[in-house]
Amino acid sequence: MTTLAQLKLDWLTQPAKPVCDTSQSQAEAHQQQLTKPPGSLGQLEAIAIQLAGLQGQEKPQIEQVHITVFAADHGIANAGVSAFPQAVTGEMIRNFAHGGAAIAVLAKQLGAQLQVVNLGTASELEAIAGVEANVIGPGTANFAEQAAMTETQLAQALNYGKNCIDQLDPKTIQLFIGGEMGIANTTTASALAAALLQCPAEAVVGPGTGINQTTQQHKQQVISQALQLHKLNQGANPSDPTYLLTMLRSIGGFEIAALTGAYLRAAQQGIAILVDGFIASVAALIALRLQPDLKPWLILGHRSAEPGHSKVVEALGLIPILDLNMRLGEGSGAACAVPLLKLACELHNNMATFDSANVSKG
Amino acid sequence: MTTLAQLKLDWLTQPAKPVCDTSQSQAEAHQQQLTKPPGSLGQLEAIAIQLAGLQGQEKPQIEQVHITVFAADHGIANAGVSAFPQAVTGEMIRNFAHGGAAIAVLAKQLGAQLQVVNLGTASELEAIAGVEANVIGPGTANFAEQAAMTETQLAQALNYGKNCIDQLDPKTIQLFIGGEMGIANTTTASALAAALLQCPAEAVVGPGTGINQTTQQHKQQVISQALQLHKLNQGANPSDPTYLLTMLRSIGGFEIAALTGAYLRAAQQGIAILVDGFIASVAALIALRLQPDLKPWLILGHRSAEPGHSKVVEALGLIPILDLNMRLGEGSGAACAVPLLKLACELHNNMATFDSANVSKG
Repeated sequence: MTTLAQLKLDWLTQPAKPVCDTSQSQAEAHQQQLTKPPGSLGQLEAIAIQLAGLQGQEKPQIEQVHITVFAADHGIANAGVSAFPQAVTGEMIRNFAHGGAAIAVLAKQLGAQLQVVNLGTASELEAIAGVEANVIGPGTANFAEQAAMTETQLAQALNYGKNCIDQLDPKTIQLFIGGEMGIANTTTASALAAALLQCPAEAVVGPGTGINQTTQQHKQQVISQALQLHKLNQGANPSDPTYLLTMLRSIGGFEIAALTGAYLRAAQQGIAILVDGFIASVAALIALRLQPDLKPWLILGHRSAEPGHSKVVEALGLIPILDLNMRLGEGSGAACAVPLLKLACELHNNMATFDSANVSKG
Repeated sequence: MTTLAQLKLDWLTQPAKPVCDTSQSQAEAHQQQLTKPPGSLGQLEAIAIQLAGLQGQEKPQIEQVHITVFAADHGIANAGVSAFPQAVTGEMIRNFAHGGAAIAVLAKQLGAQLQVVNLGTASELEAIAGVEANVIGPGTANFAEQAAMTETQLAQALNYGKNCIDQLDPKTIQLFIGGEMGIANTTTASALAAALLQCPAEAVVGPGTGINQTTQQHKQQVISQALQLHKLNQGANPSDPTYLLTMLRSIGGFEIAALTGAYLRAAQQGIAILVDGFIASVAALIALRLQPDLKPWLILGHRSAEPGHSKVVEALGLIPILDLNMRLGEGSGAACAVPLLKLACELHNNMATFDSANVSKG
């Protein structure tokens, strides 16, 4: 394989920004002083403490949220694994830009920045206001037959993800959400999950956007065969960087690679990451395997209804904030969790202490 | 027992406002048109559809939320069942009014009205700006020894709950959250839960605000004996209104009875109810048993970490929105779920349809 430097990927190996232990400890002590039984705010306490460590201040804030939706087509769609035609990827890119898609409605309500990046669709798209065209190719190649990407394409996708983060000011953006869109990308994500977890396809394949059981069995078979074709199912070490990059190139997607790059870069730049559902979590797991010190920068927005997600969540070692049976992608589940992060900070920062309110301790 | 009319409780038997089936069906059909795979917004779809039926409009809104926290002391605190001294009830009433308590911080963030009602504390409280003093007595009597309330006190508590709702304009308030505060009120709620579910105390007793295991065993014993004393554990019909009111009078609390009254009245007036955790859910279950057509008006904000809650949730037949290991009460868990209700409405009302966005259907 070409070296990382030749592919302009040497930034991949940079460590994540260290967490501020002092701020985290101060936040933990502060929580004990608030007028409530210790621990009674549950996960909201943990979130506030984690954010304090990430932001390097005892009283963290979530004011500016940046959402990037990466969209791309997948050659594997030609294997008949999706409920929707491939044209929908381009149609949805327009819908993101025009404000009609779920993530666009959510971003507006949350006052979050929404960036839409087209990494390549099967049919060429016109220029669309509000869409950044970073076209790598007309979607990936069909990984049932050949590698999904060339080395150069993989590097482009990872670097596009990095570039999105480099455009952000870590002093003003407290949270990054990565979303994805691409017909057949639950198939891609399931293949990656099976390779990452070294488990059979059956364990991680689900209905995606709504295929029937026959198509789902076909999807499993397509993935099983592809894992064999690319030699990803034979006692590999799924934590080895070379394995991970080969896997991502062989059976990945442009938008999943871009998410992986964005997550790695966000942690390097010191921006907390709110991970979405199944597909985003697969990208997060690849990033985490490439750089284990990414871990404290990850917050999991929700548990998806896609059955493979729980296995990936377990591998990530994260506790989802929401569990609302959502399975839309686009970053929508993570976006729905943003108000909880804000409320966790508000409670942490603005509740009275036992002393200030003259409340007796137990 | 005295008649309901004599106790000015004849309103208790009024039915809940009927749900508008037309609006609900329209909302359901509308969801199918939005640019997403059907069902992919999970519980958020169900919430929007439910609210459409309750509000009698295809596109529901959650703009004005009213929160009432009912506070009262419990005679059972003298049995040594709580981690905090009884003085905390009064201290927390001040903390609610001064904005330092969790629910006060949450109400401010949500732009919700917060009403604080003092139904009676063990030590008399001074007049506090922002606190309505509707004092029924210096807390309930110790139900380990005698009935917690007289018939008159029970009627007062139920009527205070009703009155809080009668002050609201159902045209402008779309959501009611009832909160509670009262040292030892998880003991009261556990006793009520055991009587409602006809199960042993062990099945519903938990750590409350944080007692140790020895105190928890003592709490179980206190409750078991009280259920025997008041003859609430012997093959009773826990759906019989007379049984329910006797139970509430014998082992209930002023704030729990007020919540019961408020829930019943909210459904009669056509205001949707967002139920909080264990204690609020016990009140909701009593209200639901008294008036089964209350059901569609109930939305469950969260699943509490208090172990008895899941059993009560099952009896209510509701799916919690959040499950964040919270166990504070005050209405705090329900308040944290409000942003999800708002986002459910925004998605429902503002997403593009397949037709309007020219997106292909599967």
